[in-house]
Amino acid sequence: MQSISVSDIIVKKAAESRIDQVDFDKLVFGTVFTDHMFECDYINGHWQQPTIRPYGPLTISPAAKVFHYGQAVFEGMKAYKDDQGKVFLFRPDENFNRINKSSERLAIPEFPREYFFGALEELLRMDNDWIKPGLGNSLYIRPFVIASEIGVSASAANQYKFMIILSPAQAYYSGDVSVVIAEKYSRAADGGVGYAKAAGNYGAQFYPTRLAQEQGFQQVIWTDANSHQFLEEAGTMNVFFRVGDKLLTAPTNDRILDGVTRKSLITLAKDAGIDVEVRRVEVSEIVEAAQQGTLKEIFGAGTAAVVSPVKAFSYRGTKYDLPAQESSYAIRFKKALNDIQYNCAPDPYNWRYPIN
Amino acid sequence: MQSISVSDIIVKKAAESRIDQVDFDKLVFGTVFTDHMFECDYINGHWQQPTIRPYGPLTISPAAKVFHYGQAVFEGMKAYKDDQGKVFLFRPDENFNRINKSSERLAIPEFPREYFFGALEELLRMDNDWIKPGLGNSLYIRPFVIASEIGVSASAANQYKFMIILSPAQAYYSGDVSVVIAEKYSRAADGGVGYAKAAGNYGAQFYPTRLAQEQGFQQVIWTDANSHQFLEEAGTMNVFFRVGDKLLTAPTNDRILDGVTRKSLITLAKDAGIDVEVRRVEVSEIVEAAQQGTLKEIFGAGTAAVVSPVKAFSYRGTKYDLPAQESSYAIRFKKALNDIQYNCAPDPYNWRYPIN
Repeated sequence: MQSISVSDIIVKKAAESRIDQVDFDKLVFGTVFTDHMFECDYINGHWQQPTIRPYGPLTISPAAKVFHYGQAVFEGMKAYKDDQGKVFLFRPDENFNRINKSSERLAIPEFPREYFFGALEELLRMDNDWIKPGLGNSLYIRPFVIASEIGVSASAANQYKFMIILSPAQAYYSGDVSVVIAEKYSRAADGGVGYAKAAGNYGAQFYPTRLAQEQGFQQVIWTDANSHQFLEEAGTMNVFFRVGDKLLTAPTNDRILDGVTRKSLITLAKDAGIDVEVRRVEVSEIVEAAQQGTLKEIFGAGTAAVVSPVKAFSYRGTKYDLPAQESSYAIRFKKALNDIQYNCAPDPYNWRYPIN
Repeated sequence: MQSISVSDIIVKKAAESRIDQVDFDKLVFGTVFTDHMFECDYINGHWQQPTIRPYGPLTISPAAKVFHYGQAVFEGMKAYKDDQGKVFLFRPDENFNRINKSSERLAIPEFPREYFFGALEELLRMDNDWIKPGLGNSLYIRPFVIASEIGVSASAANQYKFMIILSPAQAYYSGDVSVVIAEKYSRAADGGVGYAKAAGNYGAQFYPTRLAQEQGFQQVIWTDANSHQFLEEAGTMNVFFRVGDKLLTAPTNDRILDGVTRKSLITLAKDAGIDVEVRRVEVSEIVEAAQQGTLKEIFGAGTAAVVSPVKAFSYRGTKYDLPAQESSYAIRFKKALNDIQYNCAPDPYNWRYPIN
């Protein structure tokens, strides 16, 4: 058994910070990266010496399996800074467990807990200045694993690269989104990889999403591939429906991502005394509720977008507008979550993870 | 409209060939590459100047979308050399059309025909010595496209890299394979990307395939994700079943790859007077045929493996051995295909594409 310790991380500091070149008021999500990144290779059956080094390009063979077979998984997390300059992660254990669950499904070796947390803590200390305080500001954290073995034969790799890159972020979406409910295309199969944050799950959605965008919508809400009768998730977000004062969302299964924001919202809603039904949600009941005026809200929940209100949805060519809500669940939960994330409220669930 | 011409390809020759370092009698499939590769970037809405340069690593951002969202497609083709040293491709139009069909589904821009064929012809002329004559020897050709834009936001890239790399090959499989018929895991959903050679389709199969391998089998034959009652494909091969003297194979649809070897075999079989039924094949009818002794053969068909006989399959924990065949369809079709590919027989279908 390999002995692993955080102190094994080799740190190579950037000669000079690039932070002065960045306009933090005009960030495009996911396009600007901090001074450092984490890298750890899996070779000969072991994770090798982990390294933090200046952010920069990889030198990688065009025959690396990731390019050909999509053997790759990732996570999305955020670090938040409070007004005193303290930095927090939000439920990072969930992301750690999930990347290894994703990896298992993609036949990628498990990554050690000590390296994951050691890397995050060291990176966030080194690139602390890139985390700006203030509501909506955060540092988006992207851990990912790619198959780096050279070989154009379709089998699991025996070499991998685990990386973490960091990107300062403002809010992900500007304004409410309109969505299309999928009738033809699908995101995931029973027995497939839909529950994993597998790279290929995302690329597969771009074309149907583009078709939706050409009709004036921003996102697709996916339905089950068998019947298209049940609402699943939005691809980068889980989805909640408020009918009357009741909150509905699909249960997780092998097609639906077990979202950290989703499960946090369920906890917050239940503890606020809201009736939450985690069950299969039929498209027809949502359409009926919209027609009868009992559908009060739809919103997405995900790390990047936090809570993303939906202003309209389209189904079978008909567009249904959602009414403006004076006491919106979406806004209420976003505030409650943000208050915990930014250390503005007590944390009864121990969701905050301080970086010292 | 962009004007495109083959003469636009910039050629940078390798200073020295690596061919003398290669033992062509001990090739491991897909691990050795020739002296040159083709590269063409898509930037600002256009495919830029294409280049052939010495085979070597890419310098690419860790934030390139291909690593995170699996927005990547590929093709598999082979070049064959006859005893006079003439080089041929096999139905390359099929691969050209298919990579663009795959690209469309992955929201990747179409690649121009002139560049595709211009690149192949120039590469095969330059690396001609890497193509060895003799049955079973070939040069495996891997065209692929990856999303190269920097950005960890889940949307289609606006920059891509189209590449072709070449790998000398002997036979893909050593010996007959045993397979497991899938009961739990799935390869593709209705409305998904199963018909495309999308990178993510392959990585998703590695884990279930590993489980099969741990039971002593080499491959999985996938069934439909809804019911697991119908036989689909083997992930890197389409599948044929010979019951009595009749040949059965699943029709192509949005879950099944439209294989070039598959369609060539159907043509060859029909023209040989064999009864070919292209229809949904039930697992139960194959199991029954195996029990009754009327199941004579199962074989896979794909570019890498050509025709790959199956010697046994497992279903619901029972293993069914296939009888040895004196006049095997698999061997007969492999020979007929090879005879055309290696210019040892007339080519009534115009499948050969000579490289001059």
